[in-house]
Amino acid sequence: MKLYVATRAPNPRRVTMFMAEKGIHDIESVNVDLHSGEHRSDAFMAMRPFAKVPALQLGDGRVLSEARAICVYLEGLYPTPNLMGAGGTERAFIEMADRQDDLYLFASVANCIRHTHPGLAELEVRQFADFGAAQGDRVLGVARHFDVLLASRKFVTMERFTIAGITLLCALDFAKGPMKFRPAEQGLQHMQAWRDRIAARPSASA
Amino acid sequence: MKLYVATRAPNPRRVTMFMAEKGIHDIESVNVDLHSGEHRSDAFMAMRPFAKVPALQLGDGRVLSEARAICVYLEGLYPTPNLMGAGGTERAFIEMADRQDDLYLFASVANCIRHTHPGLAELEVRQFADFGAAQGDRVLGVARHFDVLLASRKFVTMERFTIAGITLLCALDFAKGPMKFRPAEQGLQHMQAWRDRIAARPSASA
Repeated sequence: MKLYVATRAPNPRRVTMFMAEKGIHDIESVNVDLHSGEHRSDAFMAMRPFAKVPALQLGDGRVLSEARAICVYLEGLYPTPNLMGAGGTERAFIEMADRQDDLYLFASVANCIRHTHPGLAELEVRQFADFGAAQGDRVLGVARHFDVLLASRKFVTMERFTIAGITLLCALDFAKGPMKFRPAEQGLQHMQAWRDRIAARPSASA
Repeated sequence: MKLYVATRAPNPRRVTMFMAEKGIHDIESVNVDLHSGEHRSDAFMAMRPFAKVPALQLGDGRVLSEARAICVYLEGLYPTPNLMGAGGTERAFIEMADRQDDLYLFASVANCIRHTHPGLAELEVRQFADFGAAQGDRVLGVARHFDVLLASRKFVTMERFTIAGITLLCALDFAKGPMKFRPAEQGLQHMQAWRDRIAARPSASA
């Protein structure tokens, strides 16, 4: 198998952190250079028509994409430690938390950065700066919700570390770069404490 | 169990169509009136802080939200017919297809409508019409991709009807209303034929 990633891109990080938590070290990693447009090359798009990383090429040639779907596949191959739920009920509650991280926080961070950051003008076909700024405000609103949640619990869900923690950390660290968003500076101490605790896991620097 | 839905809203439809495919008829359905702001009432927000439908209240009082997470739970309780994959590999490929329907098509349709339709000004805090219009162009681009895909296959994935078909139909029918988007009018005959075939399933009118 080959995993296509891109240095410092937040979505591939979700998969590499997931693999590190499971101790998976036998999958070859191939870097795709987004700034030179390698993801839009004929070779890459033949494999991955939406021109996005990460993508996992299986031994039989099939290509799996979308960070979370790749994790579902790896969870099946490497079930321990369980990061996505054992049984329908756990799987459902973890997916709910993961989707909330993803659709409400991660997507708003991505929209804000893509539509406001000069360095990303080349990756985004057209930037809408006012929309991007409003998405930045939304990030703060959603982060406040998570801060309240994390005031009374150690983990995002299930009282243990799961994929939902990976997605939340990757979203927060993505916001830390171009948006310079730091929970503590917004008075979100519980979220900052959670972030610092999770960022200390070896998988976070994988 | 109680399922909170809203008449004509596309995300609750994903769950009601999923339930109809499985023949689930024993879950009470409660309508939430979005136009009078019932989803922002204290009572609803205490249960569902993100103020969104659908939400499934379980027998023990816990509340599960996010359409796809609710489907994961129901798939566990009612495994037949399988709509989300048997085993890690099938689950991963179905989730990839479902996320592509959801993140690339459904989300662009929703962004276009929320940011351009006068009737939704009251639901969207601030509308960005130029961003919304660009998202409408994106819908067409993604729809073209699906049209190519559906030229050579009867189903979105796995050669059978899955949750990915539900999400794609709900996205297309959402676009048909306020956006007046019809695949055939854009020259997307394969997508139109697929849509008409799936819309004829009894679950589509559930």
